[in-house]
Amino acid sequence: MGSLEFELQKTDADSKARTGRITTDHGEILTPIFMPVGTAGSVKAVSTQQLKEDVKAQIILGNTYHLYLRPGLEVLQNAGGLHSFMGWESPILTDSGGYQVFSLSGTRKITEEGVVFQSHIDGSRHLFTPENVMDIQRIIGGDIMMAFDECPPFSRDYEYAEKSMEMTHRWLDRCIKQFEGTQDKYGYSQNLFPIVQGSVFADLRKKSCEYISSKNAVGNAIGGLSVGEPDEELYEMTALCCEHLPQNKPRYLMGVGTPWNILECISLGIDMFDCVMPTRNGRNAMLFTSKGVINIDNKKWEKDFSPIDDGIDCAISNHYSKAYLRHLMKSKEIFGLTIASVHNLAFYLYLVTQARQHILAGDFVSWKKETMEIIQRRL
Amino acid sequence: MGSLEFELQKTDADSKARTGRITTDHGEILTPIFMPVGTAGSVKAVSTQQLKEDVKAQIILGNTYHLYLRPGLEVLQNAGGLHSFMGWESPILTDSGGYQVFSLSGTRKITEEGVVFQSHIDGSRHLFTPENVMDIQRIIGGDIMMAFDECPPFSRDYEYAEKSMEMTHRWLDRCIKQFEGTQDKYGYSQNLFPIVQGSVFADLRKKSCEYISSKNAVGNAIGGLSVGEPDEELYEMTALCCEHLPQNKPRYLMGVGTPWNILECISLGIDMFDCVMPTRNGRNAMLFTSKGVINIDNKKWEKDFSPIDDGIDCAISNHYSKAYLRHLMKSKEIFGLTIASVHNLAFYLYLVTQARQHILAGDFVSWKKETMEIIQRRL
Repeated sequence: MGSLEFELQKTDADSKARTGRITTDHGEILTPIFMPVGTAGSVKAVSTQQLKEDVKAQIILGNTYHLYLRPGLEVLQNAGGLHSFMGWESPILTDSGGYQVFSLSGTRKITEEGVVFQSHIDGSRHLFTPENVMDIQRIIGGDIMMAFDECPPFSRDYEYAEKSMEMTHRWLDRCIKQFEGTQDKYGYSQNLFPIVQGSVFADLRKKSCEYISSKNAVGNAIGGLSVGEPDEELYEMTALCCEHLPQNKPRYLMGVGTPWNILECISLGIDMFDCVMPTRNGRNAMLFTSKGVINIDNKKWEKDFSPIDDGIDCAISNHYSKAYLRHLMKSKEIFGLTIASVHNLAFYLYLVTQARQHILAGDFVSWKKETMEIIQRRL
Repeated sequence: MGSLEFELQKTDADSKARTGRITTDHGEILTPIFMPVGTAGSVKAVSTQQLKEDVKAQIILGNTYHLYLRPGLEVLQNAGGLHSFMGWESPILTDSGGYQVFSLSGTRKITEEGVVFQSHIDGSRHLFTPENVMDIQRIIGGDIMMAFDECPPFSRDYEYAEKSMEMTHRWLDRCIKQFEGTQDKYGYSQNLFPIVQGSVFADLRKKSCEYISSKNAVGNAIGGLSVGEPDEELYEMTALCCEHLPQNKPRYLMGVGTPWNILECISLGIDMFDCVMPTRNGRNAMLFTSKGVINIDNKKWEKDFSPIDDGIDCAISNHYSKAYLRHLMKSKEIFGLTIASVHNLAFYLYLVTQARQHILAGDFVSWKKETMEIIQRRL
């Protein structure tokens, strides 16, 4: 399922944390890594230059649901794929569209065949199947493609979770068949990651991990978490999945999460993360910094001319003051959204890079304990 | 009225166009020049890095009305002025607030003393006088400050125009007295430009130019144009003012205009321009390019993967395609607003820089004729 390579570099002695290197045809990714979400062909409010130079992103994520609806496949195919369309030369991972179909679209109907859904833009009807979602992702051109899964909302309904997981497994077989029956689209290798489901039920998660592992994919993902369950269950399920997924393949925990969720899950053996939180919360005036959490709308920052964050290596976080960003946000200036988004993403990348360095240095657990306390403080 | 220096470098043999060099304590400005408008401490949707590297701005404008209301003088004074607050190290010009008081605020009352107006943000009442507008601009810290003038809406009422102009002249005397009685605020030189008024009446404009010239300011501005009058009258009044204002001082035509307005007014002897058009029109999908005018929302650009503009030296205009920008604008992605704004500003800067080079090369008039035709085409 592709030619992506993963070199496991070091496993921490005191936790399950590990460092590694993923090699794709668009370059290397050092893990653990966070992937900024480029929803509709753009990481919201952030330029590709800022992604490279300020955020220091190594890989970004594209949303199949959004890109399929707009600009649509004809444009993306004519552009030569998403890298070329958006001017981003590093790796891209595309999700399967499943999550957005379940969370964004109007009426939708799930059958064994797939999901019929209505566009949130114009109400038009569309069908996603395991097969056409592979074809769509081939055209978008991600280096890493995701299997089509059902993403049920959080519930403790065991029976539904089991049925849903089993359908996701059957859909996976269809995804793999379609993936293997089709070619790389643009001359570079595309790769397929299957997704573990099973809600918050340990036996289902174990079963799903075993099924997924049997496919021997180049990397594996854990879905259906961070959907409303308590952090304890998120960590418990993540730990369990890491135990039952292959050691020598990258593990991607989808849609997680806060900075402290990420540190905790790194310690459990996760290599890859994505989340809209840094950009979405940034646009709503919430900043994650190396010294704690800031609500930049707060009056206390009005005359604080210190840098947004001088503890991380990001020109934008170092250059602009808290007072200036507060002013821009209060004045609803667009550039405020850019500063907040770039800063939060840069902080997430700083955090995973620091984690990597401390795993390599052998003091990850003590660094994590200290850092968790600092970064969760409300400033 | 300041220590700003202007070196007139070359006057065109076939027109009134000229090149020069303005020296301020924040650096040099080569004229003719266009100044991007940084309304409320930010050129809308554009970072200071993009202003420097992509747009190649040499000086930007700050709006006194907006900055006075938000973040307010206390914040700006504590920040050490606007340069420091917004992280911009090149020259800044501040307007007097007069234009916004007349165009944006709620009820307002003009008397000899000044203008009482209501904030467009919270309805609070404020008074601008020639004296306090000098004090406010001292605190904002612009390298170039503007005299407080009345900016009446366009009308052909001669009597009103005459009375208004005369009051603007009396206000100018009060501005000069206040300016000369106060100190540079932050260790660098601040300078005051008076403003010619007189609507579309040649005798009033001439009288106003003579009055303004008698003050022997380091630079002079022409206000009250581009407010709804036909282009012919804009050019006629501009030509007349250039004739009656000093040769050896920079001439700033306020709030003008389209790219072709700017080329025409350069040929009449104007050295400095500002306008919100490149950013405002950019945010509304209208692009000025070296090949003509583009409505990027238009279906015809959907699959046009050529650069937005490869005819100008701007990494953003060269890097992103028309199809990509169209997609971002249709999807209401914030980054689309940034690309369009940066591109349009870069085009304006390209145009005045080209004008300068052709004046120096001695072929300005023929270049202008050819360029005017190209850049006004609808693509």
